[in-house]
Amino acid sequence: MAQLKDHEGAVGFIGLGNMGAPMAANVLAAGFEMVVFNRTTSKAEPLVAKGARRVERAGDAARPNGVTITMVADDAALEELVLGEPALARRMAPGGIHLSMSTVAPATSRRLARAHADAGSVYVAAPVFGRPDAAAAKRLSICTSGPERAKAAVRPLLDAMGQRVFDFAEDPGAANVVKVSGNFLIAAALEAIGEALAMVEKSGVDRVAAIEMLSSTLFACPVYQGYGAAIAHQRFTPAGFRMALGLKDVELALRNGAEVKAPMPTASLVRDRFLSALAKGRGEMDWSAVALGAFEDAGLKPPG
Amino acid sequence: MAQLKDHEGAVGFIGLGNMGAPMAANVLAAGFEMVVFNRTTSKAEPLVAKGARRVERAGDAARPNGVTITMVADDAALEELVLGEPALARRMAPGGIHLSMSTVAPATSRRLARAHADAGSVYVAAPVFGRPDAAAAKRLSICTSGPERAKAAVRPLLDAMGQRVFDFAEDPGAANVVKVSGNFLIAAALEAIGEALAMVEKSGVDRVAAIEMLSSTLFACPVYQGYGAAIAHQRFTPAGFRMALGLKDVELALRNGAEVKAPMPTASLVRDRFLSALAKGRGEMDWSAVALGAFEDAGLKPPG
Amino acid sequence: MAQLKDHEGAVGFIGLGNMGAPMAANVLAAGFEMVVFNRTTSKAEPLVAKGARRVERAGDAARPNGVTITMVADDAALEELVLGEPALARRMAPGGIHLSMSTVAPATSRRLARAHADAGSVYVAAPVFGRPDAAAAKRLSICTSGPERAKAAVRPLLDAMGQRVFDFAEDPGAANVVKVSGNFLIAAALEAIGEALAMVEKSGVDRVAAIEMLSSTLFACPVYQGYGAAIAHQRFTPAGFRMALGLKDVELALRNGAEVKAPMPTASLVRDRFLSALAKGRGEMDWSAVALGAFEDAGLKPPG
Amino acid sequence: MAQLKDHEGAVGFIGLGNMGAPMAANVLAAGFEMVVFNRTTSKAEPLVAKGARRVERAGDAARPNGVTITMVADDAALEELVLGEPALARRMAPGGIHLSMSTVAPATSRRLARAHADAGSVYVAAPVFGRPDAAAAKRLSICTSGPERAKAAVRPLLDAMGQRVFDFAEDPGAANVVKVSGNFLIAAALEAIGEALAMVEKSGVDRVAAIEMLSSTLFACPVYQGYGAAIAHQRFTPAGFRMALGLKDVELALRNGAEVKAPMPTASLVRDRFLSALAKGRGEMDWSAVALGAFEDAGLKPPG
Repeated sequence: MAQLKDHEGAVGFIGLGNMGAPMAANVLAAGFEMVVFNRTTSKAEPLVAKGARRVERAGDAARPNGVTITMVADDAALEELVLGEPALARRMAPGGIHLSMSTVAPATSRRLARAHADAGSVYVAAPVFGRPDAAAAKRLSICTSGPERAKAAVRPLLDAMGQRVFDFAEDPGAANVVKVSGNFLIAAALEAIGEALAMVEKSGVDRVAAIEMLSSTLFACPVYQGYGAAIAHQRFTPAGFRMALGLKDVELALRNGAEVKAPMPTASLVRDRFLSALAKGRGEMDWSAVALGAFEDAGLKPPG
Repeated sequence: MAQLKDHEGAVGFIGLGNMGAPMAANVLAAGFEMVVFNRTTSKAEPLVAKGARRVERAGDAARPNGVTITMVADDAALEELVLGEPALARRMAPGGIHLSMSTVAPATSRRLARAHADAGSVYVAAPVFGRPDAAAAKRLSICTSGPERAKAAVRPLLDAMGQRVFDFAEDPGAANVVKVSGNFLIAAALEAIGEALAMVEKSGVDRVAAIEMLSSTLFACPVYQGYGAAIAHQRFTPAGFRMALGLKDVELALRNGAEVKAPMPTASLVRDRFLSALAKGRGEMDWSAVALGAFEDAGLKPPG
Repeated sequence: MAQLKDHEGAVGFIGLGNMGAPMAANVLAAGFEMVVFNRTTSKAEPLVAKGARRVERAGDAARPNGVTITMVADDAALEELVLGEPALARRMAPGGIHLSMSTVAPATSRRLARAHADAGSVYVAAPVFGRPDAAAAKRLSICTSGPERAKAAVRPLLDAMGQRVFDFAEDPGAANVVKVSGNFLIAAALEAIGEALAMVEKSGVDRVAAIEMLSSTLFACPVYQGYGAAIAHQRFTPAGFRMALGLKDVELALRNGAEVKAPMPTASLVRDRFLSALAKGRGEMDWSAVALGAFEDAGLKPPG
Repeated sequence: MAQLKDHEGAVGFIGLGNMGAPMAANVLAAGFEMVVFNRTTSKAEPLVAKGARRVERAGDAARPNGVTITMVADDAALEELVLGEPALARRMAPGGIHLSMSTVAPATSRRLARAHADAGSVYVAAPVFGRPDAAAAKRLSICTSGPERAKAAVRPLLDAMGQRVFDFAEDPGAANVVKVSGNFLIAAALEAIGEALAMVEKSGVDRVAAIEMLSSTLFACPVYQGYGAAIAHQRFTPAGFRMALGLKDVELALRNGAEVKAPMPTASLVRDRFLSALAKGRGEMDWSAVALGAFEDAGLKPPG
């Protein structure tokens, strides 16, 4: 049985959604004893079958001096866990570490880090890049920030879930700043690819060939290859990451930009595209369907 | 001495600038007999030293049934060569092939292809991706479009200059469509990186570390790595590609978009950034300095 | 002494800022008995000198079946009044009318209207257009929405404060929708005027003469005349309406647009300009200084 | 018979379109002897019936020391008249005045003014604001720039066509700068109104009532009243000013902005909307239909 130095006993995991479930499975596979919680209890069953223990209330996945990982939907859900009843912040004191892996606002991480500190526990931000298949394959990239000692303590868990860890020092919001920047850059690329391919298409040129050329040379990287092909082929279902989540992430970037007074006009443009996609009933499509805005503006009919 | 099938004799090369000079040198190194022309004659000297013959007038680098490569500054310069006096279109007839490698508007390629056809010669569009160092190292990516037979004939020359050739069928404008799309995508990425890093910086997070993380994972490709580092370190001189050329290329994208009625709002945004950069006296900087707009809007002082 | 039908006794007025003070003075001058509250108590003195009664707590400006007017800074302040302790919503029950004249989100009005209805009192939205001098001169334009009977009851008060009342039916959020639309249109005009005059200036043409021409013909209306002159002369202090309030109002428009899924790209652009103005330290300037963004992008130095 | 001081004889008028015809009629009605030209000759008949003399070639509407008014479609048509054969610039020398009333680029006016000066004649720019009904009613607003003496000489003609003349000094491009700025401001207002009313509509509020309120108070001026009603009622045919002309005028603003390095992001946004409107087949609608872009982005169906 694997053990974390100074933090013995079962690792808690709250939030077994598309991302959380494979991440928890990898922690379990690495030999850690686990206590898991999910609101939809059926999601816990595969983990229970492999030896995890399911608890009835989120708070029961946390205990003094323990480590609890959270991977939940949004800032509100995370705040409810930390500050609601029973509050993780208190439940984990003294000495417990909350390894917070959801994509939330930097300001949320900073606020929750203070709440943990006040209560005698520790908050580590560790948002991830990667989609569910990458989570399953332990190929996540993980950004961390928070107290050095706590980050060192949870490192074996991070290594169980991801292929690389990038640290951004002690400010608990820093890792989230990088995460929302990255998701903004992806969203900006989706829009730019949409504009480029709508123009290519209306110029009578093969849009699939065009993006294949570009994404095998200058842009030979996962974002342009994966999403470029999806946009060129107009394959937006099933959603790997739903439209509303895309909007949420761009809003996180814009809200953080507003707080620090850094205008982000490309983010504004993309946000408007997401709103339009939702207005047109594309809520169930992958967020890369945001590129359809450029196609429609050019008078091209969307698929379906 | 290397020879092209059906097109014997010296290969012409017009335009020995930052890109043209190393490209011509590679053709020469591949064993082709060459006739070269450049307005600033000193640029031809290194090639002459290696065996190329310099001619006094651009037209003299072309002859019936020959192959002439052009790599000139802009649409106007190329039009003047093809349609002015002595007009390449006629000078190369019958049967000569004009291998046009400059970045020009798709509409320009189509118009010049018709002029060549009317005169009895052939136009092949073959714009390239890559900067001068890539040209020197034969690592250019070359997009081609035009008559199949002519493209096959000049293939040994393309192989002498680049590492990969991507073909886009017979429409002579098609290769240029892909080229301007690609340059637009780069410009869009420059702007997005600028916005992301300005927000990162004002959030108190290390912008160099942030872009290194992103460009070694999701965005592990030349554009984000090279330009991302330049923007994070605010290193914009010496210019690899000057600001005014960046504006020119985005204008090519917008103009083509206007012709085919495909609006490109990100291109519009970036064009405004280029204009502002020029208004602020950044004409001698690399086009990646377009990212300074986002920094300044966030109240950050530009370097220098 | 003036009296409202069915709602006898003193009229309450909460919020005696730049707008509230002259509005309250006009209600008093129309002969209504008044009870006033302001956090900074000195603001109440001129009204007390003319016969108003000052109360110590906001809640004391409200009573069952009475009418209380509020003119406060933002949504949070208004929510605190209605839902905090003592809650206006309950304090005014049964039958009291809350005449809510602040600029708040439509969603806030709807939520507070429900709270009032639940508590047995009534909420009427009545945001106003006009600056402090218009308030003093009874030249406000007032938009109303809410229950018909309550609107009829407070009509004498509206007539005491404004020159025209525009009704938008029963949805308590409707009047706020129109108000935020109007402020958005002003902000959009500020940006457009800035862009036009920056271009005029850099073209070597007299920008004051240009805006005088335009605002005496096609755009012969208060917004273009007043703000057009301010922008042309770059006269941004003292602030009639501070930059941060401009940002707040554009955010209200964007947030409402987001809720109903109506993208507003011009609002997005202007929001980014406001953020930049604040980043550059222009918080104390009038919101029309948002136009300086266009001047700076054109390489023109801002005043001062 | 009315006479111009120092420039006796018939006044020439070239270009009898929707605007030119009523303008020429007013000059004729003011008592001036006239020589008229239009490519579609039938357009000249009503004027001939009232005493004008029709000529076969445009050049015949010009003579040494005479005054010729032009009101043509675009820059290319005007350049052809002045520089083509027979060139007005030479035909009017010595001493003739070309009163150029079309909407053209400032750069075009400056270039043609030089051509006239070189040839011994004079160019006066005098673009107008107003639609055909305003032209018929002599309610045009006219902007002028050029040599003082020539402007004084043609003043009786301007007074015969418009209600007010606004002068912008000697730079022949200055009047055009103001004209394109004004048309840009109108286009920006169309877009902003569209965004505001789409948001209003989706908020469940009466969009006609909303714009009536706003355009009878803050925005009580022709642009918001006329176009506001058209947009709220979605009445875009018949076109008073066609979509393609709207695009042309916004492009004139953008091109002039590019020349003087003054970015105009709102103009860029509106240009993209015009392109999209044309892509969607709205070429025959009034340019105010550019506002449909905002409605569609919000998921609202356009009329028809």
